[in-house]
Amino acid sequence: MASMGLGLVSEKGGRYEALHWEVVRTAKEVPFPKRLMQLHDALMSAIARLHPGSMAMEKLFFSRNVRTAMSVGQAQGIILLAAAKTGLEVAEYNPMEVKQSVTGSGIADKKAVALMVQRVLGMDEMPRPDDAADALAVAYCQLVSTRGSRAGGIPR
Amino acid sequence: MASMGLGLVSEKGGRYEALHWEVVRTAKEVPFPKRLMQLHDALMSAIARLHPGSMAMEKLFFSRNVRTAMSVGQAQGIILLAAAKTGLEVAEYNPMEVKQSVTGSGIADKKAVALMVQRVLGMDEMPRPDDAADALAVAYCQLVSTRGSRAGGIPR
Repeated sequence: MASMGLGLVSEKGGRYEALHWEVVRTAKEVPFPKRLMQLHDALMSAIARLHPGSMAMEKLFFSRNVRTAMSVGQAQGIILLAAAKTGLEVAEYNPMEVKQSVTGSGIADKKAVALMVQRVLGMDEMPRPDDAADALAVAYCQLVSTRGSRAGGIPR
Repeated sequence: MASMGLGLVSEKGGRYEALHWEVVRTAKEVPFPKRLMQLHDALMSAIARLHPGSMAMEKLFFSRNVRTAMSVGQAQGIILLAAAKTGLEVAEYNPMEVKQSVTGSGIADKKAVALMVQRVLGMDEMPRPDDAADALAVAYCQLVSTRGSRAGGIPR
């Protein structure tokens, strides 16, 4: 995983709001362990700044190949570590659950997800890029599922 | 991954020596992210105490299933992070390469590996448990492959 989407959503009186969204990128020429460290540091710093009440990340589809699963697992390891260090619970949702929660359909495409994220979170513009929109979708899915008030989401 | 073998091997004038071996265990009832954190903390502390010159870890076979690959990947993520934090290079060897390097055969069983680890490292007793013997085997494989003088190994 070369980059990581982060999104923070809050709920108050039935109104959902996007408080923060970003994509943390790492450079291709940097050795992989160092890229993992950069992602981990960025996540720790985002948690310290944004104070989510819980975290959610997207599960891998079980149809993907083993090599993909390994590298997604490696990135998840440093995400789970950040959660443990900061005492946050981490929920996991598969991509269909996330899409279902935001769009009402488990098979929506990227654009449909971003458009519905804009609508359910009352945003002036469609969140970009896709990874940031997906991050908000995961965070929204977590709030709706847990009836929480402030959640951070990380797509695969 | 519930536990992690760690082994440190040194080389001087063609003589290989086991300097340290242990298995870090975590409790089943502890939530998984916290277990990852315990493994990460133990590894960071071992690196600080033992000063390896490089690190090596065992690669997953590519025939295993996706769920196994994910959880092995998660543990590898926190190992790679520890390497990046301490500025150590991490090499990866598959189990056949490790067995080949220690026993001369890629299909040796656990006991044969432990016995040959004892022999090549001039140990009074066979290292136990299996994960610790495997860790020494990975470290030995790394030293032989790189002609290094001090390496830490972590089996899968």
